[in-house]
Amino acid sequence: MCELLAMSANVPTDIVFSFTGLAERGGRTGPHVDGWGITFYEGKGSRTFKDSGPSCESEIASLIKSYPIKSEVVVSHIRQANRGEVNLVNTHPFTRELWGRYWTYAHNGQLSDYEGKFVSTRFQSVGNTDSEMAFCWIMQKIVDRFGDTSPEQMSDVFAYVATLADEARQFGVFNMLLTDGEYLMSYCTNNLCYITRRAPFGKAKLIDTDVVIDFDKETTPNDIVTVIATRPLTNNEEWNILSAGDWRLFRLGEVCAGS
Amino acid sequence: MCELLAMSANVPTDIVFSFTGLAERGGRTGPHVDGWGITFYEGKGSRTFKDSGPSCESEIASLIKSYPIKSEVVVSHIRQANRGEVNLVNTHPFTRELWGRYWTYAHNGQLSDYEGKFVSTRFQSVGNTDSEMAFCWIMQKIVDRFGDTSPEQMSDVFAYVATLADEARQFGVFNMLLTDGEYLMSYCTNNLCYITRRAPFGKAKLIDTDVVIDFDKETTPNDIVTVIATRPLTNNEEWNILSAGDWRLFRLGEVCAGS
Repeated sequence: MCELLAMSANVPTDIVFSFTGLAERGGRTGPHVDGWGITFYEGKGSRTFKDSGPSCESEIASLIKSYPIKSEVVVSHIRQANRGEVNLVNTHPFTRELWGRYWTYAHNGQLSDYEGKFVSTRFQSVGNTDSEMAFCWIMQKIVDRFGDTSPEQMSDVFAYVATLADEARQFGVFNMLLTDGEYLMSYCTNNLCYITRRAPFGKAKLIDTDVVIDFDKETTPNDIVTVIATRPLTNNEEWNILSAGDWRLFRLGEVCAGS
Repeated sequence: MCELLAMSANVPTDIVFSFTGLAERGGRTGPHVDGWGITFYEGKGSRTFKDSGPSCESEIASLIKSYPIKSEVVVSHIRQANRGEVNLVNTHPFTRELWGRYWTYAHNGQLSDYEGKFVSTRFQSVGNTDSEMAFCWIMQKIVDRFGDTSPEQMSDVFAYVATLADEARQFGVFNMLLTDGEYLMSYCTNNLCYITRRAPFGKAKLIDTDVVIDFDKETTPNDIVTVIATRPLTNNEEWNILSAGDWRLFRLGEVCAGS
């Protein structure tokens, strides 16, 4: 399987603390050694750092842990391969452009017996994972439903994606993150949780390595920051656990739709 | 304007030497301080590092200069903005997926009076540069001509792109790099040159900083590596200078088509 991490914030915020915890699970405190990636949005622009080796020993991951990139939306993934070889092309997150936005996606889980299901022509897999195939299918279905221009209410698109995720879940475990750079959606089959931090901020302690942060010193009183993860990253805070079929849509750090 | 850099090789090769020269031009020996980016292919997979600040002082560029990523195709760009603000979304290279391949593009030059020319629906600009607009138009025209599956001869696609580039050149300066990860195309309006290095390898000396490399020690006798740049990067080798309207298609380090 794999682990997911994402962030939605109302001010550009760095994710060094959370990524430091996640990266440990890529070979040190967890078995996810088959690649890692992280996508940062700055406005509509995005950039993705990825590597097909373990995050715990990656030089690029070291940079991400030491060099604070401030972003309003982040999606990250560490991989333990099941379908598809271990290489760069199969490393999440995956990105496609639609409606003049970069859509970024990461998946945790495994799908089976899906022959003939995830069909897409306009968006095609470059690698050979079940994850990317499902992503291309979702993007194709969005275009089939909404056409070549974005609807007025982007939340309608994500509500539709939730119904597609319900379909995908019929074929196995489908925990998913999807963003267009403004909205961030999480969909749960079995392992996904989130925490929304806002004033008054306190201290947080990572589970996977001996790091404590005092958010009160790193933030302003108006900051609202949600972090989503496969499993809680801190052990002194209360995380919201999602159930099978639950989804949440975040914008500027806050839940704006969901089941 | 901007500067371009690219590589095509028959074995995974690092571009540390050439990028070290280029990065100097991003603020130290050249005025291209408005962002930089570099895309590396590993098989069909690709990853892009980019930053909206000057390459000469970027921490991420420092990593690229010190951490050899081996690749068969590389596209890089340093930006001096004319159209479009200085930010991540307007930073080259740009990437889109078509036919299950990642297509990566960078442009040097400026286009004017093109209203109504570069129209595209399937591929849309995320930023607001003339460069990305022309890229989306090229990708749209490729789909209009060849449909949803790649033709048998990919060189046919690039020959068609050369005719599109001829059209784009009517609107200003259009020096361009385009790759699908296997083929690498360069198109010249006024500034583009290349060098193909093969055995017997010799020493090369960068123009922009005091670095000398002995390729004989870095290569094997079968290696063939072409580097493309806006202006020569070394001063003790002979670079091939392209003329207005010239294009070359490279694969595995060698010219395979062109004008």
